[in-house]
Formats: sequence, C-alpha cells, structure tokens
Amino acid sequence: MKTAISHQTLESMVTPFPHLHFPTPQSPTPPSQDDLKRVAAHRAVELVESGMVLGLGTGSTAIHALDRIADLLRRGALTDIVGIPTSKKTEAQALALGIPLVDLNSHPNIDLSIDGADEVDPHLNLVKGRGGSLLREKMIEGASKRFVVIVDESKLVPRLGGSGLAVPVEIIPFGWEYTLGKLKKLFDGVSGFDAKLRMVKKEGKEDIDVTDNLNYIVDLYFEKGIELDLGLISDHILRITGVVEHGMFLGMATEVIIAGKDGIKVMKRER
Amino acid sequence: MKTAISHQTLESMVTPFPHLHFPTPQSPTPPSQDDLKRVAAHRAVELVESGMVLGLGTGSTAIHALDRIADLLRRGALTDIVGIPTSKKTEAQALALGIPLVDLNSHPNIDLSIDGADEVDPHLNLVKGRGGSLLREKMIEGASKRFVVIVDESKLVPRLGGSGLAVPVEIIPFGWEYTLGKLKKLFDGVSGFDAKLRMVKKEGKEDIDVTDNLNYIVDLYFEKGIELDLGLISDHILRITGVVEHGMFLGMATEVIIAGKDGIKVMKRER
Repeated sequence: MKTAISHQTLESMVTPFPHLHFPTPQSPTPPSQDDLKRVAAHRAVELVESGMVLGLGTGSTAIHALDRIADLLRRGALTDIVGIPTSKKTEAQALALGIPLVDLNSHPNIDLSIDGADEVDPHLNLVKGRGGSLLREKMIEGASKRFVVIVDESKLVPRLGGSGLAVPVEIIPFGWEYTLGKLKKLFDGVSGFDAKLRMVKKEGKEDIDVTDNLNYIVDLYFEKGIELDLGLISDHILRITGVVEHGMFLGMATEVIIAGKDGIKVMKRER
Repeated sequence: MKTAISHQTLESMVTPFPHLHFPTPQSPTPPSQDDLKRVAAHRAVELVESGMVLGLGTGSTAIHALDRIADLLRRGALTDIVGIPTSKKTEAQALALGIPLVDLNSHPNIDLSIDGADEVDPHLNLVKGRGGSLLREKMIEGASKRFVVIVDESKLVPRLGGSGLAVPVEIIPFGWEYTLGKLKKLFDGVSGFDAKLRMVKKEGKEDIDVTDNLNYIVDLYFEKGIELDLGLISDHILRITGVVEHGMFLGMATEVIIAGKDGIKVMKRER
C-alpha cells in the first residue's frame, strides 16, 4: 500500500484566487437564463479537440453543449469524437444529434467531460443530480482527465445546499423507508433539515421516481446550506446501508465556467 | 448536530476477554460440520421469545435456525413471532416452513437477528455475503437490537480476509469494469490481492451473478487477510462510485456462538 489509500485534502487542491475572465457582454439586451446556459456551454466546447473521448452531461445546460458539438461535427470542424452519455436521456439526445457513442467499459479514460450543476460553491464543489443522473455522472466525470462544469450565475452558492433546493441521494429500493429514516437521523438536530423520497407524476398520479439504475432518490434539504465538513458528511451518508451515492461532487470539477449578465467567469482548480 | 455524526470506536466496544462457555460434548463420535452449524443455530434460537420480531439470516447455518424456529412454532413453544427475511431465498424457505413474515418498512425495530457468517475475527467483526445477500443482511441486522452470529469453528480467523476466501462487494451493473478497476487500484501494491467479478453457472454456461437487488458482486481476495485499518478500508471502498455495500460487518454482531468439536463458545460484545 503506497498512495492508493491516501486522500488529497480538498482545500489543498483549491486555487485560493481563481483566475477570472470578464469578457465584454455581446448584447445590450439582458440575456435569458437559457441564453446564459448556452454561452457557458459554447465556451466549454471550445476545449473539445478532434479525436477526444468526451463525457456527455445531462440536463438543460448540458444539452447546449451537445447541440454545439453536433454542429461542429456536421461542419467538419471536429472529427473523430466519441461520447459517453451520463444518462439514458442524454444517450437518446446524442444519438438523435448524430454524436457517435461508446461506453465506459470500452473507453475507461475520458479526455474531457462537460456537464451542468445544480450548485457550485467557492471551492468548486458541486451539487448535482436533481435530474436524477448523479451516479452515472459521478462515475463518468470521475474518470475524466478534465471535468468542466457549465452554469449560469444563479447556481453559485456560498455553501452546498445553500440554494434551499435538494441535495439528492440515490438509494436501493429495498428497505427505502429504513434508509430514509437513517438519513433523517444523521442530520437530527440540524435546524431546517428535511428529507423526502422523490416522487414523480406519471399519467396524472404520483409515483416513486426511479433512476436509470432502477434505484430511488431521497432529496435532502438544508435551510441554511451544509455548515458541516463536506468530506465527513459524505462518508457518513455513504456508510448508511442502502445508500448507493450522493449528489455532492467534492474535488471533482477542474474548472467551472459561469455565464452571468456581466460576462463569463472561469474558476479553475490546480491539479 | 449532537451525537448523530459521532462514531463509536470499534475497539472500545469489544470485550477484551469474552466470557467462554464450554459445555460437555453430547456425543462421543466427532460431529460433522453441518452438525456443528445446527448446534450453534439451536443455541441461538434459545434466545427467541414469543412476540419477537426476528431478522432471519441466509445460508447453510441460518437454515438450521429457521428449521428450529418453525419447529417451536408448530409445537406451540413459541407464539406470535414474525420474521423479516434477509434474502429471497430465505423468504421462500420461511414461507415453506410456515413462519409468518413482515418487512422492514412495517417493522423497523427488530428484536433479534440470527445469521451465519463467512469469517469472524477476535473483535466480532465479520465477513458475510459469499451467498450474495450482504446488503439486505446488513440493513436488517443493523436494525436489530441484538444480532447473534452462528458459526462452526472453521469460520474463526485472526483477521478478516484471512481464510483466503472472498470478501464480497456489491456494485451497480452500470460501469462495472470501471468499478472493478477502482477496487483493484485501491489495493494496488497489497501482496497477494486479487479482485474478480462473481460469475455463476446457469444452464451449463457462465454468466454474471446477479443479487436480489439486481446488482453485481466483486469478490476481493487477500492472501494474508486485511492488515489495514478496517474502518478506513470500509470508507475507501464505499467512496468508490458504483459501490453499493461491502461484506465487512464491523461492530455489528452483539454475540457470536461458535460450535466446535470441544463444545460451544460464546463471544459477547459489551454495548
């Protein structure tokens, strides 16, 4: 056993003063949130080079990156690209757009992944998975040399959970009420905390939401964000029998491209 | 946040000199391994009281406990028992034996679980799951006030993994080769270590073994047993995206009943 068991301290990997770019805004009329998502996505796709193996993200921001990649492939500006989709939804979208697909088993070394996030904190830690694809995203983005996150500025939070929206946890269906109870107990006494099994409306009636891996999702809510050590919280969540994975992506993003009304900012992590 | 996040040190919960019982052997002819399993199981079932909610283990030792409970129910020596099976196999066996069954969601507080183990170390830590039911076993036995392990003496090891047989890890099918690779990397440099996806013979041909939760199993092999800190190893395994649970049951057993050629020993953990 040499280094395999050692863990890098997150703080030591964070650039204290990330290099910021502030290009001049392109348009005098205020851009919509979707415009900002597209701007961030197009900036990220500038990093794509011919011959790369790409991790393809899931969600309303990542779809703009897919569109852009497909456009460049059609125009011949990019060639010899293969993509690994992070969800069945992205797989279907990529196929429809004509992006050649492979899988993680045949291509375990990914050059670049581009994906959105639900929250980004100042240390480039993320909350992901409100779209339900956190496990495949985490696996594929964790296997990537470079993982570029694309967000509009509304996703920036001082601490994870700080948006008041869900921090998702993927759990095994067997004994889900027991697992939910354990998650509630873990955060017992944290003011404003709540945990709920994620439901979905199907043909007019409520049903349990099921992930691509046929598991369930518990959404954790923190009124004031997570004020505890994230690494410690991560381990405590993963120790609960029945938990598969959670939506906190700690120390994974290598850069975050943030599109705002005043232009694009880029936060980078030193490796 | 008061106590929910704190973790008990395993060592502090272990009785340094477990109380040992050595009853006189019943028979002058040497008992078979199956006889020993039955002896341990019957001793454990003496702890069952009418009205209890029981966790029902899985495997060749646990089946003797099931048989005994069913026998006592038929004779009216036990009444008002309900059982929660730790596998589909045990569920079918218990139903056939006429043991009334409930589930963990309706009965989250279990009085007593009785189950076998593949290995038992001197601190009452276990390896379980060679039968493939580790996740349900861990959940149900973790929800039990009292968890009694029944083994024949061949299951005692100086350290976990020390039998040279598998320490199983349940993983998500998606990206299994990636997850297997991560498990191999974690133990990179450990002499005699190996990791293999568990296969099963179905109708003459080899196929991937699938758990009750529709997941796969990776079997870890340690030539000399695990010489590293078990709690640390547990966390490192659980941190791998794609890992659901592993078969090391640390600090869970409250007592271990060991049937040997010289009689029965009982190891107890102070709570």
